Amino acid sequence: MNTVQKPHILVCNDDGIEGEGIHALAAAMKKLGRVTVVAPAEPHSGMSHAMTLGEPLRIKKFLKNNHFFGYTVSGTPVDCIKVALSHILPSKPDLIVSGINYGSNTATNTLYSGTVAAAIEGSIQGITSLAFSLTTYEHADFTYAAKFARKLARKVLLEGLPADTILSVNIPNVPESEISGIVITEQGRSRWEEDAIERHDMFNNPYYWLSGTLKLLDEDISKDEFAVRQNYVAITPLSCDLTAHGFIGALKQWNLQT
Amino acid sequence: MNTVQKPHILVCNDDGIEGEGIHALAAAMKKLGRVTVVAPAEPHSGMSHAMTLGEPLRIKKFLKNNHFFGYTVSGTPVDCIKVALSHILPSKPDLIVSGINYGSNTATNTLYSGTVAAAIEGSIQGITSLAFSLTTYEHADFTYAAKFARKLARKVLLEGLPADTILSVNIPNVPESEISGIVITEQGRSRWEEDAIERHDMFNNPYYWLSGTLKLLDEDISKDEFAVRQNYVAITPLSCDLTAHGFIGALKQWNLQT
Repeated sequence: MNTVQKPHILVCNDDGIEGEGIHALAAAMKKLGRVTVVAPAEPHSGMSHAMTLGEPLRIKKFLKNNHFFGYTVSGTPVDCIKVALSHILPSKPDLIVSGINYGSNTATNTLYSGTVAAAIEGSIQGITSLAFSLTTYEHADFTYAAKFARKLARKVLLEGLPADTILSVNIPNVPESEISGIVITEQGRSRWEEDAIERHDMFNNPYYWLSGTLKLLDEDISKDEFAVRQNYVAITPLSCDLTAHGFIGALKQWNLQT
Repeated sequence: MNTVQKPHILVCNDDGIEGEGIHALAAAMKKLGRVTVVAPAEPHSGMSHAMTLGEPLRIKKFLKNNHFFGYTVSGTPVDCIKVALSHILPSKPDLIVSGINYGSNTATNTLYSGTVAAAIEGSIQGITSLAFSLTTYEHADFTYAAKFARKLARKVLLEGLPADTILSVNIPNVPESEISGIVITEQGRSRWEEDAIERHDMFNNPYYWLSGTLKLLDEDISKDEFAVRQNYVAITPLSCDLTAHGFIGALKQWNLQT
């Protein structure tokens, strides 16, 4: 971080540039530094680390109340980060913040999240990156979440993060007075049950909607989803290294031959 | 695994049901057990853990030489696993194998890979799962890759894998006689450089294609991409837990307050 100039902060999300959460997040970041918003033109929830390989991407300016707010990219959250860094920003930003997402990015959902993927893409590019989610899809109040995002971003700009590591922050959708506290958590284990439901069209042919309920496989305050359900702000450090390091020793004993 | 009945093996991929690799993989698995193929109707490379939330999914039967080969799903690799487990298979399979993918799923590309994501989705559902890739996009010869996939699958059916852990296998596109050996590896560090290229349409408006070159950030035989470039088969155990466990202690020292 340049200590003389204000930090430059890239703001992205996966709900698309019209999502309420990115406006709350951009406003909060403007109190810390210079902000550029680059977000998907359309909502891209559940897109994970998907990128667009088969078609070209377009960049457009997006106005809010007749004033320039940011850029849209006709692709996924990861596309946004790639195009922002290669063609929109004049130099690497000091920080990337992604969100504020509707719905928690915890437990198994961490893998499906475009919000988290945008931040991980930033970390791959060597940029300090954070992801923020509010744990609701309805009646969202981003007031406290935006305030906490600003506070954490300021701290992270000072302290930095280890290489290839982001912070994924999940914030309960309650007033500040009802927040139980801040906890550092691990990604919980969970599984979607009854993953898809069957319906029938006019010709009685079946079709399927992904659906289901999230079943928690561990219930402990050290796990993200459980903590956030107790009204804690859950901060989970995530890595872009998926290696199951703990299994390497045993696997070497298999003595596989060609 | 049921020791009396033959194991039931679900075969998926991200290149789509017409991809040559899934036919080689299905043929190899048929020598081990009963096989069901469920694959995307269209290619879905680079789709990572994306799933389809905004539209319904269709299942169709796919014929090869006028014989039933498997089912297509009108979605992503992860959609295929979800729909296969909830609506196509009568019970949980003993093994899921994904691939054989065109192009290596190593280093940073591990995160973008739909092939790997399908296997990880399987592991989340508690099913032993493997991902296979051949390190080429052209002149692919799946002979040795399919043979090795069968050998490893047999071993894994006997030994099992730890919970939430898959094996991602990258196989050089060379004849068996030129394979250097088998190594157990970690996900290497890498970064795509010059991520997007700019072109102009008939109206001189710019558009962008994701592109670039993969820059390796570590060069060591213990890393997947480096190993496979030396003609080793690289087997990397991957976890669906993204937590950066090593940073939790330091992060707790930040003493964040609401």
